Amino acid sequence: MSGSAPAPSAPPTPVLLRVLAGERLERPPIWFMRQAGRYLPEYRALRAETSGFVAFCLDSERAAEATLQPMRRFAFDAAIVFADILLVPMGLGQEVWFEAGEGPRLGPLPSLQAMQARAETAAAELSAVGKTLSLVRGALEPERALIGFAGAPWTVATYMIEGRSSDRTAARSLAYTDPGLVDGLIDVLVEASAHYLAMQVRSGAQAVKLFESWAEGLPEDLFHRLVVRPHRKLVARLRELGVEAPVIGFPRGAGALVLDYADAVPVQAVALDTSAPAALGRAIQQTGKAIQGALDPLLLRAGGPALDAAVDRLLGQWGDGPYIFNLGHGILPDTPPEHVARVVERVTGRVRFS
Amino acid sequence: MSGSAPAPSAPPTPVLLRVLAGERLERPPIWFMRQAGRYLPEYRALRAETSGFVAFCLDSERAAEATLQPMRRFAFDAAIVFADILLVPMGLGQEVWFEAGEGPRLGPLPSLQAMQARAETAAAELSAVGKTLSLVRGALEPERALIGFAGAPWTVATYMIEGRSSDRTAARSLAYTDPGLVDGLIDVLVEASAHYLAMQVRSGAQAVKLFESWAEGLPEDLFHRLVVRPHRKLVARLRELGVEAPVIGFPRGAGALVLDYADAVPVQAVALDTSAPAALGRAIQQTGKAIQGALDPLLLRAGGPALDAAVDRLLGQWGDGPYIFNLGHGILPDTPPEHVARVVERVTGRVRFS
Repeated sequence: MSGSAPAPSAPPTPVLLRVLAGERLERPPIWFMRQAGRYLPEYRALRAETSGFVAFCLDSERAAEATLQPMRRFAFDAAIVFADILLVPMGLGQEVWFEAGEGPRLGPLPSLQAMQARAETAAAELSAVGKTLSLVRGALEPERALIGFAGAPWTVATYMIEGRSSDRTAARSLAYTDPGLVDGLIDVLVEASAHYLAMQVRSGAQAVKLFESWAEGLPEDLFHRLVVRPHRKLVARLRELGVEAPVIGFPRGAGALVLDYADAVPVQAVALDTSAPAALGRAIQQTGKAIQGALDPLLLRAGGPALDAAVDRLLGQWGDGPYIFNLGHGILPDTPPEHVARVVERVTGRVRFS
Repeated sequence: MSGSAPAPSAPPTPVLLRVLAGERLERPPIWFMRQAGRYLPEYRALRAETSGFVAFCLDSERAAEATLQPMRRFAFDAAIVFADILLVPMGLGQEVWFEAGEGPRLGPLPSLQAMQARAETAAAELSAVGKTLSLVRGALEPERALIGFAGAPWTVATYMIEGRSSDRTAARSLAYTDPGLVDGLIDVLVEASAHYLAMQVRSGAQAVKLFESWAEGLPEDLFHRLVVRPHRKLVARLRELGVEAPVIGFPRGAGALVLDYADAVPVQAVALDTSAPAALGRAIQQTGKAIQGALDPLLLRAGGPALDAAVDRLLGQWGDGPYIFNLGHGILPDTPPEHVARVVERVTGRVRFS
């Protein structure tokens, strides 16, 4: 009988990974997008020690500390590595910097040929992120999962084309007027991101997430061309590279098209944004995929009885299927940490796994 | 037999109104959001004659001329009155002005009580819009429809609360933290907009459109509270006021929730934005409602074979049901008028109704 009992020393499988493997649990695992960040005073103090946001992301000791800070305060079931989606363009040879209070700025787009030549090696230039993951994995309790991530190709391409945060109209226009360039850039990003995520998994990430922050507003044909097809290729490429870690896809703003995404992309979970209806989430769960989301960060910031009610509603509407509790977008910088604690307690307090 | 033949003098019913009455035609009627505007050199010349955008909107002669300009150039089946969604806040006593190149600015929000007192009379202060409609109706051929419009309550409320174009986070937060104020403001806007639209119909508008430009990103419960419920009330109030004109609802950015909207709001047509999948439009048509949309304005600006292909695709995917050809968002100011002419010709050229 001893064969079926786990050895006393076997670490428990993190609940996040159990849900990503299709298990239904008594309560969903919980983590929050941007759970490491400016709403925490200890993050602001740490961040102030380093000049330049890119330098901070590539400072593995401090990035690991930022990753771990929310794990000390809150009973989150997963940590997500502190990094930025614009590190990959840097690895591809495009200059990236952050203007204080204004967000990212990118230099001229390198030639497609120059970027193609670096698609495989870009990950190696971002080895600091791998070191961050190793440090975090070494410090994190075994029952808590560690998530790696990359920006999805279209979203990263919009920044690379527009040079900053934007309404993405220049990038979308270019998709119409110069499809060769845009599709070529997307292909480079698929390849570079697959290697980058593979490196993250080798370094300790147990699941990875693709952040498609700008699926919003794309017509159906562009959504398939710029989101669905590249995500499919990226997941396939990950598997070719021997990566078995589960993938969470987040096509933010996909609206009704998120069902097409869930049908066509072989991810293990689909993250939903704040606007996802209950029925749509259930429809995805019924395909066997897990869903993640989708508390409104504005409500998390506002707090009060409406926040409690929304947490209960999410647990009620999605808790019966494979579900990961999260926000529909990142935590806002002026969110009171007590509100985060209150939601984590409400979700995890009913059932303790350890 | 003469009883069934129209009298020779009976004007033909505009094709737009036939579709809004549920008829299926050989080809869809066509008009474009912002078809009167900056992409036309004759508009820019006209606009330059008047200082201040609000003054221009309230200058009935010039607003009528702006409305008619695209009707002379293109075979559009409908004109839409030149006005602005922020005239209603003015009517409610909030200061509104436009900073050149920056967009609208609004003064402090009046008290709810002060606005409630003006909800019925605000329309009378906007009689210039009625005069514009009379002038246009007098000049427009009878087979072409004239559309009136108002901003939908939530969208107008976001501007009134935030004081300018914004990411709507302050308004959405207020919906959580001060529901009494936000719901009260929405109710005032329902009442004021109903009277405003009734005045427009009395002045010559044959259909009206509700522009909910900022349905985007709302969680399901807020979507029902801030969009579905107020639209239902507004249409019901219009009917109470004796208005029989058909209503086009445009919940832009509603994503998958647009189906809830189509089910719950008794509009005659649902306008879809660029991201609406083909299947979703067909699902709405199957409920008996017409749909409108949803060519990408960026593709209209880009032109070329991809534009022709998209026009054909829209005609193919939705042309079998009640359908109004339009964009998914307004014409961009730097759109070549030749591209507009090309699309109108492609849609109308196959079948002429007169």
